[in-house]
Amino acid sequence: MFVMNTWYVACSLADLDALGDKPLGRTICNEKMAFFRDGSGKVVAVEDFCPHRGAPMSLGKVCKGQLRCGYHGLEMDGTGKAVSMPGQRVRGFPAVKSYAVVERYGFVWVWPGDQSKADVAQMPVFSFFDDPAWAYGGGLYHVKADYRLMIDNLMDLTHETYVHATSIGQPEIDETPCDTKVDGDKVVLQRHMEGIQAPPFWRMAMQANGLDPEAKVDRWQICRFTPPSHIMIDVGVALQGHGGFDAPADKKAYSVVVDFITPETETSHWYHWGMARNFKPDDAALTDSIRKGQGTIFGEDMEMLERQQANLLRWPERKLLMLNIDSGGVQARRVIDRFLAQEQQEAS
Amino acid sequence: MFVMNTWYVACSLADLDALGDKPLGRTICNEKMAFFRDGSGKVVAVEDFCPHRGAPMSLGKVCKGQLRCGYHGLEMDGTGKAVSMPGQRVRGFPAVKSYAVVERYGFVWVWPGDQSKADVAQMPVFSFFDDPAWAYGGGLYHVKADYRLMIDNLMDLTHETYVHATSIGQPEIDETPCDTKVDGDKVVLQRHMEGIQAPPFWRMAMQANGLDPEAKVDRWQICRFTPPSHIMIDVGVALQGHGGFDAPADKKAYSVVVDFITPETETSHWYHWGMARNFKPDDAALTDSIRKGQGTIFGEDMEMLERQQANLLRWPERKLLMLNIDSGGVQARRVIDRFLAQEQQEAS
Amino acid sequence: MFVMNTWYVACSLADLDALGDKPLGRTICNEKMAFFRDGSGKVVAVEDFCPHRGAPMSLGKVCKGQLRCGYHGLEMDGTGKAVSMPGQRVRGFPAVKSYAVVERYGFVWVWPGDQSKADVAQMPVFSFFDDPAWAYGGGLYHVKADYRLMIDNLMDLTHETYVHATSIGQPEIDETPCDTKVDGDKVVLQRHMEGIQAPPFWRMAMQANGLDPEAKVDRWQICRFTPPSHIMIDVGVALQGHGGFDAPADKKAYSVVVDFITPETETSHWYHWGMARNFKPDDAALTDSIRKGQGTIFGEDMEMLERQQANLLRWPERKLLMLNIDSGGVQARRVIDRFLAQEQQEAS
Repeated sequence: MFVMNTWYVACSLADLDALGDKPLGRTICNEKMAFFRDGSGKVVAVEDFCPHRGAPMSLGKVCKGQLRCGYHGLEMDGTGKAVSMPGQRVRGFPAVKSYAVVERYGFVWVWPGDQSKADVAQMPVFSFFDDPAWAYGGGLYHVKADYRLMIDNLMDLTHETYVHATSIGQPEIDETPCDTKVDGDKVVLQRHMEGIQAPPFWRMAMQANGLDPEAKVDRWQICRFTPPSHIMIDVGVALQGHGGFDAPADKKAYSVVVDFITPETETSHWYHWGMARNFKPDDAALTDSIRKGQGTIFGEDMEMLERQQANLLRWPERKLLMLNIDSGGVQARRVIDRFLAQEQQEAS
Repeated sequence: MFVMNTWYVACSLADLDALGDKPLGRTICNEKMAFFRDGSGKVVAVEDFCPHRGAPMSLGKVCKGQLRCGYHGLEMDGTGKAVSMPGQRVRGFPAVKSYAVVERYGFVWVWPGDQSKADVAQMPVFSFFDDPAWAYGGGLYHVKADYRLMIDNLMDLTHETYVHATSIGQPEIDETPCDTKVDGDKVVLQRHMEGIQAPPFWRMAMQANGLDPEAKVDRWQICRFTPPSHIMIDVGVALQGHGGFDAPADKKAYSVVVDFITPETETSHWYHWGMARNFKPDDAALTDSIRKGQGTIFGEDMEMLERQQANLLRWPERKLLMLNIDSGGVQARRVIDRFLAQEQQEAS
Repeated sequence: MFVMNTWYVACSLADLDALGDKPLGRTICNEKMAFFRDGSGKVVAVEDFCPHRGAPMSLGKVCKGQLRCGYHGLEMDGTGKAVSMPGQRVRGFPAVKSYAVVERYGFVWVWPGDQSKADVAQMPVFSFFDDPAWAYGGGLYHVKADYRLMIDNLMDLTHETYVHATSIGQPEIDETPCDTKVDGDKVVLQRHMEGIQAPPFWRMAMQANGLDPEAKVDRWQICRFTPPSHIMIDVGVALQGHGGFDAPADKKAYSVVVDFITPETETSHWYHWGMARNFKPDDAALTDSIRKGQGTIFGEDMEMLERQQANLLRWPERKLLMLNIDSGGVQARRVIDRFLAQEQQEAS
């Protein structure tokens, strides 16, 4: 069961456009979809099922803005309606579902639920994507685990000490208590470490930002969850005693870890991760190097999450602990549960 | 549920003999079988199960016309009866099933159903296999899809335009209406295209046959279904205005696409495909080149069928369309359903 | 259903220690376990489940004798009790199961059942492991088949003739009747072949032992099953007429095939195999060469067992034959069934 009446990241615009005249097939919240650009160049999404003989439309081809089935040539538009087929009158053909789509921040966003409720005004707002003072780089992982395990993972960064020991982990994370606040549908978890040595990833960032990598720093992690499953994490280090997160730009290295977590099935999800940084935005080589580093770090979580999922499937009756460090994930799941309950109530 | 009291192609004689003294294991209509040559050199088929400890007989070895189990040496003959085992009296051993087999046209044919009804007189007749004016080449694919999806595929060649765009597809196929006739248990679907340019595969065939590949042609496709699942397709091109299918031999390039479709399980089948041609029958290099080309073309259908199958399993309640172009498959399935009903009635 | 209140081989000490500071995860009788050395260097086993968030403990690390979860750093001791976690009081944490372990004969032995009944006095005794006149080499296979199929396999060596025709098989095995005796919980099956030519493996062993490999020999196989699933097989050849198994050491080549068969799930098991020999115990190259040969021979059984298992799953209702050659396996299964019944009775 997923929150359906909301916007999820379906794919990056770059991944879609890299396919040329081929559509992109993707399952989101158990809905099989095919994405393509219609005649006006707008990205649209239809059910991945040809009403003729059930072939997947995502095996087809985009021709002049219509999606043509690769089996017998039925063409449909972005509303899922058949518009032509060689030698056939298609007026009576049943349409397949279509899904509301928004292109924003370099991504295709899709509303998998009740289409009559699709509302662009509900799109989340991320200022750094459109700000030239910021640069962004990211990637995509397919993870065979419940998407909520990824939320747990990201709403508690103590795991960095163990999973990412050689890059961003450091013992001080464990030693510093975190603080969780719920503000309506938002959950914010933060931890501030003062007067510490920066770990390898941040030493690299300090150097890139013209700071002495060996200097003592104040480090912060501020995880911001918004429903259904977007997590933005303010992360950074400032030279010690300059105000930490509030330090002036030339005294800190500051980024936002971007996490768009999109359910595929009950036990798998698509994970679009990235980093937006507000220093050296024009340094493409730095963007690339950070993306590679982040990709490696985030890849370290995959086996853990997939095997945690396997363990939970094996012992479904076991209750997990909910410690203070888990409060971010616990509160985020409460928000999700509230949304689910509301959708069920509206549906009945 | 399959039509059981009928002849299916189990394997080619060449594939069986290539194994030397090893039997060939194959599942047909959910029956696990082991094929081998008995003492008289005749191909026989027994259940792939050793009555001793359940080992698969197909892991064994053929010794002097008996199939010897590779585990403890039980030997059975082609009737499934144990004939010897070291240090044992085998008289009381339970026999396993055996299956009626016919060797014909280069293939091993098997009757998976009620053995008391196995009737060689019911073997289908294909004159071109034994005619020296014809040559034959073919191959085998294992397809993870209901065998009836392959029947649909072959009884409607409009898909050539989309699936096989670079070899035998051409827009005129779509534009020319087809005609379907049911004659008892046979279904014949045909399409005749006049005054067109030959597509790449047929230009090659025209050249091989001494015709100008750039000349305008009349092209035909005549799909002939006979139960349970054999489809012979007369295909060819003749120089325009010479009578098409009825044109004299020196004015045309003419072949029969041979399709033996054998169910393995509900969602998989064995597909023996080939081409019989009535020109240059002694040109082995041409046979080889056509087989390679056909293998590539037919391989293009595999992903489509397997993903269509996956879609149908996911949406079992959806009704598919039955258009005029689908009438060949629809009629063939009706024949199959009639045979199934008859078998059920006879069984009860 | 497995015999649970007994000792199984979990892994070799060498395999555990080769992992350094990583624990070893293994499923035994459907119990997922993580093995590691505690602070005193003793091997311990805990359930492979972190009580915090369900991560597998086997993905963690051993730190000063505690097993530290690789996700959030919970540390547990060998009793499955959490002993520390950064920033947490762990006193109230639920413990996970732990399992009694014995280190003996180069292996880790585990008691998967009722821990209150774990009893070192019930450990089986194998004198040759600690005797300097003997050498041992072996290996491990993971087999996708019910562990009892491996017992059947080893308690009837007539299969050597067919499965291992090029190494230890020879027709005389089939031709010589075997004798099965049940002595309490032990089953002993033996076969003595007199005045035969040694097969390749034994010719090698004779040469290594200073005997003429072409000489006629008396050969023996004495399979000794003890519950739950240990099989020791006395195997060897002696120069003809010197008493066979009882011949003096300089007239024979004598070994014990060691088989520790540990259920993983209902349809898979871990198979620790090896050979203990009482000649040239210090010849490490010979040990290695025998291990390689045995590994190859025993590998020949894997496909047969796995496909036999598949056949039995497919035809669950079929009764298998129980011939004289099967009596070893049949009797061994009766002992197992008696143990199972007893455990059930004790549990209720």
